[in-house]
Amino acid sequence: MARDAHDTYDPRTFQALTYHTALPSFADGSDSPRAYLERCLEVIEERESEVRAFAFLDADLARTAADESTARWKAGKPLSPIDGMPVGIKDLLETKDMPTEMNCKALKGNFPKRDNAAVWALRQAGAYPFGKVVTAELGGNQPGPTTNPFDKSRTPGGSSSGSAAAVGARMMPAAIGSQVGGSIIRPAAYCGNFALKPTQGAINRGERMATSMSTHGPHAGSLEDMWQVAYEIAKRAGGDRGCPALSGPSTCPQPVKPERLIVLETEGWEKLDDASKQAFDAFCRGVADKGVTLLRRTDDPVIEALEQAIGHATHVANTITAWENRWYQRNIVEEKGMPIGERLMATLERAEAMSVRDYEALLVERAQAQAAHAAAAHLADAMITLSCPGPAPQWVGKSVEECTSARPTGDAVFNYPSSMLFAPVVTIPKLAVSGLPVGVQLIGQQHEDARMTALGRWVWENVDPVTV
Amino acid sequence: MARDAHDTYDPRTFQALTYHTALPSFADGSDSPRAYLERCLEVIEERESEVRAFAFLDADLARTAADESTARWKAGKPLSPIDGMPVGIKDLLETKDMPTEMNCKALKGNFPKRDNAAVWALRQAGAYPFGKVVTAELGGNQPGPTTNPFDKSRTPGGSSSGSAAAVGARMMPAAIGSQVGGSIIRPAAYCGNFALKPTQGAINRGERMATSMSTHGPHAGSLEDMWQVAYEIAKRAGGDRGCPALSGPSTCPQPVKPERLIVLETEGWEKLDDASKQAFDAFCRGVADKGVTLLRRTDDPVIEALEQAIGHATHVANTITAWENRWYQRNIVEEKGMPIGERLMATLERAEAMSVRDYEALLVERAQAQAAHAAAAHLADAMITLSCPGPAPQWVGKSVEECTSARPTGDAVFNYPSSMLFAPVVTIPKLAVSGLPVGVQLIGQQHEDARMTALGRWVWENVDPVTV
Repeated sequence: MARDAHDTYDPRTFQALTYHTALPSFADGSDSPRAYLERCLEVIEERESEVRAFAFLDADLARTAADESTARWKAGKPLSPIDGMPVGIKDLLETKDMPTEMNCKALKGNFPKRDNAAVWALRQAGAYPFGKVVTAELGGNQPGPTTNPFDKSRTPGGSSSGSAAAVGARMMPAAIGSQVGGSIIRPAAYCGNFALKPTQGAINRGERMATSMSTHGPHAGSLEDMWQVAYEIAKRAGGDRGCPALSGPSTCPQPVKPERLIVLETEGWEKLDDASKQAFDAFCRGVADKGVTLLRRTDDPVIEALEQAIGHATHVANTITAWENRWYQRNIVEEKGMPIGERLMATLERAEAMSVRDYEALLVERAQAQAAHAAAAHLADAMITLSCPGPAPQWVGKSVEECTSARPTGDAVFNYPSSMLFAPVVTIPKLAVSGLPVGVQLIGQQHEDARMTALGRWVWENVDPVTV
Repeated sequence: MARDAHDTYDPRTFQALTYHTALPSFADGSDSPRAYLERCLEVIEERESEVRAFAFLDADLARTAADESTARWKAGKPLSPIDGMPVGIKDLLETKDMPTEMNCKALKGNFPKRDNAAVWALRQAGAYPFGKVVTAELGGNQPGPTTNPFDKSRTPGGSSSGSAAAVGARMMPAAIGSQVGGSIIRPAAYCGNFALKPTQGAINRGERMATSMSTHGPHAGSLEDMWQVAYEIAKRAGGDRGCPALSGPSTCPQPVKPERLIVLETEGWEKLDDASKQAFDAFCRGVADKGVTLLRRTDDPVIEALEQAIGHATHVANTITAWENRWYQRNIVEEKGMPIGERLMATLERAEAMSVRDYEALLVERAQAQAAHAAAAHLADAMITLSCPGPAPQWVGKSVEECTSARPTGDAVFNYPSSMLFAPVVTIPKLAVSGLPVGVQLIGQQHEDARMTALGRWVWENVDPVTV
């Protein structure tokens, strides 16, 4: 399939859509949130037929919200630095004025008139839900129709497919995704986004609390907007009940140069193609050239112990989540009297064959991995690794929705570790492999969300991007 | 108001309804779950017009489930020792075949076709939801119509009003309640129930996860049924996601005699009436007479430190919960376009004036109290205190629903400590004050649910009840 010229990705030249850069013009009246929205709608008009990022979009709803924000800016009384920002909402999160169908046939027409806590907070900050963006079915890996904005023959990743693709296609400056295994960081990396997978519990998940290791986090075209969205939500909605909320400076943290970084392999190392490995190696040399010490598993037995503790992260994370979802998913099947997709159904049935003790043994494995991670805290400022195992894979079959691959939205092998560690992650679009984005992630200790943003900003501003 | 003769409570003679005692007759065919149900329905026929424990009851739905169970017992294949048990479900928990109205006008007609995780587990064990029993509005303290089964001029307590009253009135052997502050243990104590408030997270709350310190737990007429219901749910539904489930022996733990018990005062001590204090003192002498050492705050600085750490439990627990509920409750108000009750609305508005940091400061206070509790673990087998500040208060006003007292369902002052400590509690109906039940509770370290049941059983079987 031919790729359009505008699709080829080069991290040295790609200009994502940003919002913080527009604020001075809102303040002096030379631009407005309404005009900003109209520019977004033009991009959507141009690209949506191919990218298919939206599950639902009502432009007039957006226009009303943008007009209200425009009036606030005109009056010199914006509610926050994201007042007027159009933010795509992953179609797993409830929105009081839009359907929430979760890309699941059984939930067709589902329209709870409620706002998820993060959506509620965004509105309080003056931002507005900019449609519902496509999710893989129920946040699993059965894809929706969305294609990669840099190559329509490839997946945008999942399950936050629409969030990542819409930001990558410059349709919006930011979108909310959610991650249980690798559903924020992987698609963000495939689509050239910045993204934050916060510390477990640091952003209120509202009604989305069925699982013990899911988070909501922003995809964005810039670190500044990414941080601001996370900050404004956490300031208003707090964290999950019982958890400290994400906190830090009221605008994006300043760059901080790391002294030492642990280069994490994960069980994904063996799955890397040569080009991606080559790109990451070159990138690491670039980091080292700036005077940062890089440590690897062979350098320290504590790092080796951590690598081993996360050595079965795919199995541990997937199985914990499958068990935690089984009651919720079985209810959907029974309530709607129709099956969910085959992939999910198989997972559900495997989970229903487990016992409480099988599950608890996995919790112990997770707790051990967290202990190994905490024990490595003093060794380095953060861990660094690829955000995905190479560029987004092509989908195989009649359409992206009927993709026959085992992992149609790509492999989350580089993401399960941070999910099971409850660790904050920032992904930075630093690499291109064959003209496609590949992200690099910084993984911190729990509650170091702001610090990962600061380190990520230093990496973004100081280390040369790599294209191979 | 005159009390009927059958209403006067005496712990020496009161015979609650039990289910475990019927199992041999089910096995030999001389009794059946259907016949058991019909006997329950007769009691309901006799008492419900006064007690008003039910928000919803469909006798035919119950009969169908009881018939299915009868067939399994006949075939010698019951699914568990609670197969065929009619279990009242607090009307906060979703049930796929009954409405869930939460005693809230805004939720009139609410009928999600889903089962709460505990309900789902009960069905898997062969038990069935025996109607929806009344809750105070949204689990707060605005009462429903239920009266105390031992004196209709008094509250049954709340928010698990119907659960406690139905068990106390011998309408059913067990019911599911839930507690955030004192909503299981207080009404159980006012109505002569046994009840378990499990360790935080030990029983899967399903969709009821808005708050960080709520639990689901059984009210029952016997310790045996109480344990069995909790055990069978946890075995199938597990705990909350990420939490170890309640576990222990597959039938009620054998009695265990404590060596030492801490007599906890709590901030409720000053609120006790003389008769209740006198009853509890006599009860404590009875415990000591059996060779158990009792320790008090004046005996050990670690106990004094714990008393001080829980010295503001009412404020800490109520404020944490108010904050955690604010997004959920505001959604209800907005979605339904009508206010919730005045009491709840005032709490909601106070919560909305809080900041994330105000909330987190209370989390710190809670964590400190938990540390103080853990530090006292080696001193004694458990803590013991009253489950409620004297007998259920009379309601004041035109009707129980329009009660004008500040705390129309009674004061949870003796319950907030265990809620904020995430500690397991078993309440035992050991006292009568003026012919009304008053409970005594054993409070353990986290995950000692089975042990509290064992200690409670020893107390129940070995210490004389007290009537004053």
